[in-house]
This record gives sequence, C-alpha cells and structure tokens, in this order.
Amino acid sequence: MTTPWEKAAIAGIGQTEFSQKSGRSELRLASEAILAALDDAGLTADGVDGLCTFDLDSNDPATVAVTLGLPAVTHFWASGYGGGGGCATIMSAAMAVITGAADVVVAYRAMNERSGRRYGQARAGSAVPPRAAFATPYGIHTAAQGFALNAARYMHDFGVTNADLAPVAVANRRHAANNPAARFYGRPITTADHQASRWIVEPVLRLLDCCLESDGAVAIVVTSTERARDLAHPPVPITAAAQGLATPVMRNYYVPDITEAAETGVAARKLWAAAGLTPADVQTAVLYDHFTPLVLTQLEALGFCPRGEAKDFVADGAIEIGGRLPVNTHGGLMGEAYIHGMNGIAEAVRQIRGTAINQVAGVEHVLVTSGPGVPTSALIVGRA
Amino acid sequence: MTTPWEKAAIAGIGQTEFSQKSGRSELRLASEAILAALDDAGLTADGVDGLCTFDLDSNDPATVAVTLGLPAVTHFWASGYGGGGGCATIMSAAMAVITGAADVVVAYRAMNERSGRRYGQARAGSAVPPRAAFATPYGIHTAAQGFALNAARYMHDFGVTNADLAPVAVANRRHAANNPAARFYGRPITTADHQASRWIVEPVLRLLDCCLESDGAVAIVVTSTERARDLAHPPVPITAAAQGLATPVMRNYYVPDITEAAETGVAARKLWAAAGLTPADVQTAVLYDHFTPLVLTQLEALGFCPRGEAKDFVADGAIEIGGRLPVNTHGGLMGEAYIHGMNGIAEAVRQIRGTAINQVAGVEHVLVTSGPGVPTSALIVGRA
Repeated sequence: MTTPWEKAAIAGIGQTEFSQKSGRSELRLASEAILAALDDAGLTADGVDGLCTFDLDSNDPATVAVTLGLPAVTHFWASGYGGGGGCATIMSAAMAVITGAADVVVAYRAMNERSGRRYGQARAGSAVPPRAAFATPYGIHTAAQGFALNAARYMHDFGVTNADLAPVAVANRRHAANNPAARFYGRPITTADHQASRWIVEPVLRLLDCCLESDGAVAIVVTSTERARDLAHPPVPITAAAQGLATPVMRNYYVPDITEAAETGVAARKLWAAAGLTPADVQTAVLYDHFTPLVLTQLEALGFCPRGEAKDFVADGAIEIGGRLPVNTHGGLMGEAYIHGMNGIAEAVRQIRGTAINQVAGVEHVLVTSGPGVPTSALIVGRA
Repeated sequence: MTTPWEKAAIAGIGQTEFSQKSGRSELRLASEAILAALDDAGLTADGVDGLCTFDLDSNDPATVAVTLGLPAVTHFWASGYGGGGGCATIMSAAMAVITGAADVVVAYRAMNERSGRRYGQARAGSAVPPRAAFATPYGIHTAAQGFALNAARYMHDFGVTNADLAPVAVANRRHAANNPAARFYGRPITTADHQASRWIVEPVLRLLDCCLESDGAVAIVVTSTERARDLAHPPVPITAAAQGLATPVMRNYYVPDITEAAETGVAARKLWAAAGLTPADVQTAVLYDHFTPLVLTQLEALGFCPRGEAKDFVADGAIEIGGRLPVNTHGGLMGEAYIHGMNGIAEAVRQIRGTAINQVAGVEHVLVTSGPGVPTSALIVGRA
C-alpha cells in the first residue's frame, strides 16, 4: 500500500548531549540540535521554510527563525497538550511538505527540564485549570500523582501488581545501558532493583517506574521523499501519522473508563487504517514511557494485545532487544533522556536506517507514540 | 490550474450575533457558532473529527470535543501569534482533509473580547516578553501603540497623512452600514467624521483608524471538495493557503525595515505561487483591518500596488463596493466585528456563494489575510 503520507520523509536527525544541567539556554540547545539535524541531512539553514515545535517550548518558531536567520518561513506549528504533541510536530511537517506549504521543515524540542522548570515538581502558586479543581485539593499536583490515579484503577481491575511493571523499566535500562548517549549508559537494572526502589505514589509508582528529568534538545528534518533521495541518508518515509483526542483530557477523571489509554486508541485506529498495517507489521516500537503502567495501557490501545493482558505481553523479556517486540531500544524516557518524546522519533529513524545501538534485525516499520493520557499523536515510519 | 489545496473546501459557515456584551460564556459562544456552521453545511456534530482554533481561544479543542460529545478527533491545532493565525486554522483543516487525517474539520474562534479581556487595554502587572523589554517602558503597551510606531515611519517615508487613511475606514463603514449582522449597521461615516474623531496615537491613529472590540464567535466547516458536493451548499474550495513568518515578530522593531508588512509578503509570495494566480485574478479581498495603515502596507505586500502607493490605490472609493477592488465587504473588523479575522473568512465564503450583502459581481477568487505585523497566514478561496 502507498499512503498519502509517504510523499514526506525524515531526512535528518540531530540532538545535543542529554544531561541534568546543560549550562546553556534552551534557545542555544534548540539551535545546536537543529543545525546538527540539518548537517545530518546534508542541508543548511538557508533552505528551511518550516518550523514545528511544542507550545511548551520556550523557543517559538519566530524566535528560532530570527536566531537562524531564516528569511521566509511559510509553515509553523506548535503542538499543544504537553508530551502528547511530539509525533504531531512530524505530522504537521509532513502535511506541509505534502501540500507544498513548505519544502524543508524542522521539528524540534529543547528543554532545560531538569536544571530549569522541573515537570516532576509541584509549584506553589501555579494556576489550577477548572478540570483539575476537584483533584488538586486532594494532592494531585504532579504528573506522577495524576496518572497514578488512572493506573491504580487499571491495576485493580486487571490484577496488575507493581512487580508486573518491572519489565518495562528493566527493558528501558537494558537498552540504555548500551547507548553512550543515554543518561543511564552502562547502568542496567534488575527486577530486584526496581522492587527495591522507593515509592513515589504507593502502591502504584516506584522511583524506577518514572521517567527522567532532563536537559537537552532533539531536532528532526522533514522534506519530500523525492528530495530526500538526493540527500545524505536514504529517506525514512512517514508511513502514516495521526492525532488522537478522546473525551478524557489531562487530569479529567470524569469519564466512563479512566483505565484505558483512550487518546492513544483514537490515534491508533486512525493510524493503522491510514498505514494499511496491523501491529504484526511493526518490528519495534517507541512507546512514550513517562510511567511504566501507561506503556501497558498503550500496548492494549494500540492492539498489540487485548485489554488487561499487557502485563503478560511484556513479561519474560518480550519487549527487550531479542524479544518479540523490542520497545524503546534507545532506552526511552526512563533510560536515555526525557526530551518530551522527540528523542524516540530520532531512534525510530536510526532503526530504519540500521544504525541504532540496539539494532533490531529486518526492521520494515517502526511505530512511535507520544504521551498517553492527554490529547496525543502517533506515527509510523518505514523504508523508502 | 488545479492546486493540491482544492481537494479541500469550505462547506459551512456559522456565527453568533456580534455584540459588546454577549452575556454568556465563550464556550457557549463557540458551541453555538459550531452548531450553526454544521447546520449550514447540512452536517451534525457526530461526524466532526477535526478541530482548529487559536491558542488564545479559551476553548481548546479538548474542551470543545467534550462539550460537543465528539468521540474521536484525529486532528487538532491551535494557531499562535494572535490575529495572525486565522487563515492558518483553515489551512491546517485543509491539510488534514487532504492527507486524510480528518474528514470534517471545524475551525472556530469565540471571544468575549469586549465584555471580558479587552485587547485594546493595557493591563498592569502583565508579563513583558523579552523582545518588548525596550519598548514597553516607553509606553508601548497596546496593539495600537505598538503598530503606530511602524505606521508612523511608513507614513513619514511615503508621505502618507492621517487623512490618507480615511478611505479604509469609510469603505469598511459603508459596507457595514448595509450589513444587519454588523455592529455599525446603518451607521456609515464620512471622511470628515474620520478626521474629526479623537486621536488614539497622535499623529498616526484616530479612533476611526482602529478596529472594534467585540463579543461573538465564528465557525467554519472544512471537508473534502468531493464530499461537499453532496452537502447543503456548493463547495467553496481552498485555492491555496500559506503562512508567513519573517524576521520581525510582534513588538520587535530591531529589523532592517519596520515599515513593510513583511510577514504578509512572505505568505503572499507563497500564496500566489501555490494558487497560480496574481492580484489581477482576485475580485474582492478581505484584509485584516485592525488599524487602517496596515491595510495600506498589506495591499503593497500582496502586490496590488507598488511600495508607497497604497494611499493612491485606496483613494476615491476604489476599495468600496463598485470600486476596482472592494475590500472587506462585510464591514471588516472596524465595521462588522472583531472576531480575530474569522468573520472575514465567512464573508469570503458568502462572496463565492453569491450571498453577500454587498455582493461583488463575477467573483471567481477571494483573498483573505490574517493579522499583519505578526507571524501571519492568508488564503484564497474559489469556485468549485
């Protein structure tokens, strides 16, 4: 099957080092990653006419355009809804290329999320949106606290224990241990380590069920598949992309079922149909792993296994390199870095190129998801 | 010429009344306009799978999806940069339809901008972005103050007086005077009225050089041109759409030339090329008219006349109904209402349908711009 999306491809990837303290501005990080991605593609900044990022990024497209000296940007986009917007930046870039709105679009995310504003910390005096007004007074402040409420119910309904979540963390850290770019390079963990780590939200999330907080930046260059054929690497076509918005929104528990990754499900149904593929056609996946239980609910929403069976799906090394579906071969947000999921898109490109540290054999298609539990997005990349 | 954009069309338009005090929430206004637009198209909410708005809109796509009970939204977008984002909502909707990301996308803008937060008022204690840090202390607080600085230099360089701006206001108010939906229905003005109105920013902007502040909402339904053929009205295809981002950004005066509508120029060059059209192919235009001088600089950036000659282009009724290029036949942001430019997109649809109050004869293509002086967007609609 040929999809409309395949006219667009990823031609370059770039990133800074990942750290706890970058020591420089987010604008500098963004610029470094963008120039690295352009260099990887064999392009220079003067051809860039599209910029896509997150609305949470402190470097809006106008600021980046001024900084890089781009004279005429004809497509720009900023995804909403936090970590849900990563794949949407690539989707928007692909849309621009497909319609001719832009020729070379760079998607980027730069954050001093560890040394600057930490998402894992509650902030006194911050505004409470109306939908959170009945949860915040009960101590639901951070993402871990918020998502643990959904996860607790999921675990209760389907008989999942905290120990059942360990395989997700262990797989991430095993992959990260081989990856020199990862924060946890050379530091794998065991199930016992996971079970010995302190509670963050008892009895749902331990420390090793939670993603990192990181400084760093990632950039991805999207152009036409045709043009990419003449560039530095073989093109990595976008097979399909989709956003997903279901009735649940961030910190909204007033929905029929708080245990499913409903937004991921909406995006997934659209994505598989647009790609003409099924889960069986994907050899490795990058699943947004801010918290281990949401990797389980995503696997179910994506159709890799039935509802409630993800704990069995991930057991016994099945999502580690060599298993039936290696997940987050870069180490994920838990092992490599938390760059809001954009680092996982770069990993998907490396898997298609055959240059990943934990390379999966015979990769034809890689699925990437963005943050579940909020309005989200997802994409599949393939071979040219 | 057939363009890639023409696969998408506007199938429905809807709006609330425009007022100074709507007496109801912005969410209610959005919902009313969206349901009106769907009704106009002959559709119902259950088929809507895309939502596009402004990031300034208090009704984000997730909130609207919950309110309307939309089960599976697969495309959503919120334009940045204030009034620059109007046409971009339609552009994003068209991109979604063209790529198959969504089938029925509603673009909307709802605001209690007069009875709630007034954009024309400086607010004590509001944050000053870094780029404004050297202007704000000198009294550049509101949009009128900010844009007057650019306009003053433009007027100095090209010998434009405040009286030369009167034709823009007079045309808007002449058109609004015939339009029962307009705030200034039945209330035309003369050049003498314009010249007698009080200064807002002397010697650049008088009261009648400035747009209204309004409460209200507008919604636009975009679907495939093919599907629209079976709906309530003949489709109004998107001929082309473009965004434009140049080095100037809102309140950034540190650019080589502060007198041109540079962002409009970037969008215009892309737009004409994508449409395969020139200014001569447009029979009427909707130009974002927050302040009269920026209508002049837009006319130049769009190529309707050379630099510095717009004051002659607009003189002698040339932009009024019956003139060579009727502009803002609904009355514009000065005469109909300030709904951040979305009401002008609805007017473009009426002109193509042949149902405008001030109908221009033989309309084949209508150009619409969004706010100049900030990262912006523009589109052309045509006949099916």
